[in-house]
Amino acid sequence: MTTEVQPVIKLTRGVPPAEALPCALVKDCCARALAQHGEVLLQYHPATGFTPLRELLAEEAGVSADSLLVGNGSIQLLFFLAQGMLSPGDVVAVERPTYDRAVTAFRTLGLEVVGVAMENDGPDPAALEDVVRRHSPRLLYTVPDFQNPTGITTSLPKREAIADIVRRADMVLVEDIPYRRLRYAGEDVPPYRELLPRQVVQLSSFSKLLAPGLRVGWALAWPEVVRDMAKLAEDAYITPGMLAQGVVYEFVRRGHLADNLHTLRNLYKPRLEAMLKALDEHLPRGRWISPQGGFFVGLTLPCGADAARVAEVGRKQHGLVLSDSSGFFPDGDPSRFVRLPFCALDEEEIEVAVARLARAVDEAMEDGR
Amino acid sequence: MTTEVQPVIKLTRGVPPAEALPCALVKDCCARALAQHGEVLLQYHPATGFTPLRELLAEEAGVSADSLLVGNGSIQLLFFLAQGMLSPGDVVAVERPTYDRAVTAFRTLGLEVVGVAMENDGPDPAALEDVVRRHSPRLLYTVPDFQNPTGITTSLPKREAIADIVRRADMVLVEDIPYRRLRYAGEDVPPYRELLPRQVVQLSSFSKLLAPGLRVGWALAWPEVVRDMAKLAEDAYITPGMLAQGVVYEFVRRGHLADNLHTLRNLYKPRLEAMLKALDEHLPRGRWISPQGGFFVGLTLPCGADAARVAEVGRKQHGLVLSDSSGFFPDGDPSRFVRLPFCALDEEEIEVAVARLARAVDEAMEDGR
Repeated sequence: MTTEVQPVIKLTRGVPPAEALPCALVKDCCARALAQHGEVLLQYHPATGFTPLRELLAEEAGVSADSLLVGNGSIQLLFFLAQGMLSPGDVVAVERPTYDRAVTAFRTLGLEVVGVAMENDGPDPAALEDVVRRHSPRLLYTVPDFQNPTGITTSLPKREAIADIVRRADMVLVEDIPYRRLRYAGEDVPPYRELLPRQVVQLSSFSKLLAPGLRVGWALAWPEVVRDMAKLAEDAYITPGMLAQGVVYEFVRRGHLADNLHTLRNLYKPRLEAMLKALDEHLPRGRWISPQGGFFVGLTLPCGADAARVAEVGRKQHGLVLSDSSGFFPDGDPSRFVRLPFCALDEEEIEVAVARLARAVDEAMEDGR
Repeated sequence: MTTEVQPVIKLTRGVPPAEALPCALVKDCCARALAQHGEVLLQYHPATGFTPLRELLAEEAGVSADSLLVGNGSIQLLFFLAQGMLSPGDVVAVERPTYDRAVTAFRTLGLEVVGVAMENDGPDPAALEDVVRRHSPRLLYTVPDFQNPTGITTSLPKREAIADIVRRADMVLVEDIPYRRLRYAGEDVPPYRELLPRQVVQLSSFSKLLAPGLRVGWALAWPEVVRDMAKLAEDAYITPGMLAQGVVYEFVRRGHLADNLHTLRNLYKPRLEAMLKALDEHLPRGRWISPQGGFFVGLTLPCGADAARVAEVGRKQHGLVLSDSSGFFPDGDPSRFVRLPFCALDEEEIEVAVARLARAVDEAMEDGR
């Protein structure tokens, strides 16, 4: 053990690095938005969101504006969706593991959350069939592109099989796609909305594409659902954060988003590669898939290692902070899973972080013997 | 009946007029906030709110920062407060009439809402005693200054009597004070927090003092409650709208708020006076109190007039849109009550609006005979 002070490294949540936040452009866009739309942006507004932004996003998606709602981040829109559509005691199916905040949102509403096992190319259709048969879920929540927390992208055959099950079961499928446009390799897979337009609600956000502090997310559904969600949004906060919506509108309208995505891909791609290389080198006994985009690599620790124990050893002995993995599992059993976010660290820090993780794994396994 | 086209006048919600929104200053403050704090404002952040703003507001209130939470408007903070403190089926006492969105928030949480009759100088303590005896409410929600929807300010003797009941009943009193600093005449009455510090939660917002579209409100409570609220806020939206909080911080820090309040008082005072004069002139058979600040005059229509019928005649015959009064009454019976917001119309429009209202009242009463 060394007495040298080492700066703590966080491998916790999916946070963009400071250098990814386009501060100067946001300032310009904000000035311009206030000059053009100040009286609207500073006033009360219908909870459907800033109309020019809503129209722009709807146009990009090829839908009418009444199919789209802009709110304060997508997790709250998921909450409104479930609040409007489901009743306490209803069952929601999620991937296992899944995005922890989605599970919290569903449980806050008194919903029962049931997991569907993930395979390397997406949720196992047979497991979903089984959940449908046993629990009759009303909704399936999925992150099909560069999933949080595993990094897995669901393959087209899997999407087709799952869409088929969802169609037959007359469920709603929610595809949450905040990472979809952050692809560093390979080809886009068609979204569920193309496979099953009448049963799919899409959620996304500008947190990973522009800046999380703006809190701008959107939902694409059918007009009746959008109306219901807007009513619940109005009850919750009257009006969404308008200034940030004005900024996002200007940012997209001026074409900065495309440039920014280019910058982000160039920034994050070598970080992902560094993470995969470091895992190869330091944790050859672990298992992971190689994501083609997004923010996360999901690691399965070697047999005999316990995620909670590794996190504890990492924190206490090696200046490494990991997420509480149990939150990703609806049953609370994290088994050997560790989520590794790679965007907020540079290549050198990633190498150091994974080396520390490997030492924590070794020590935790020795302790366990 | 005239065929001349008359522009519709809205006397619905408490909306500030466009000329009250300090657009240029918001632009300056936003640029400055981003230059100074861009990396924080564009990033994820603890749900307690932008730390410099939190500290500034806490200092102004004479409390430590851990007693204060800044969120996306005060109605959602009321929701988090009740969500954290109460359970479905619990009873909440409110003034009758009260702010309609507060009733909606409580009911969304499955709470039972019971009204306490309002007198000209605040809620009737005997009625509150009775509600306490019969329903054991856990919380009393009150808007003590220039109440929404009546304009009533609760007198000091009433506040003392109510504080005494709340103390003995071991309840929490929530005082919602968004209008408190918009006083156009008379003297401030001590807030409940001074009378009963350990049982009072204060809520307020910058919607009426600066701009509603920013969605910045705050709650002042004790640290454990603030912690619980922040946890629920994090579950709901992860991070509040940071850009707007940066703007509000700069606006307050630079001293613009004091100037803006001066401007608003000078703008709104003659509008209140015009409203009272027009009521005297056109509706001498109605009853109202003369508020000394805020956004609203609460009108009780002459005997025999029905609020819903008057609203219908106003809308169909006179180009006048009123609020649905039933929302202000927990029992849904609006009786003869009409809320008249006076800030968004100039003096001439107010005169026209009240003249139309008086004609609608006359016609509704004739119909009713």
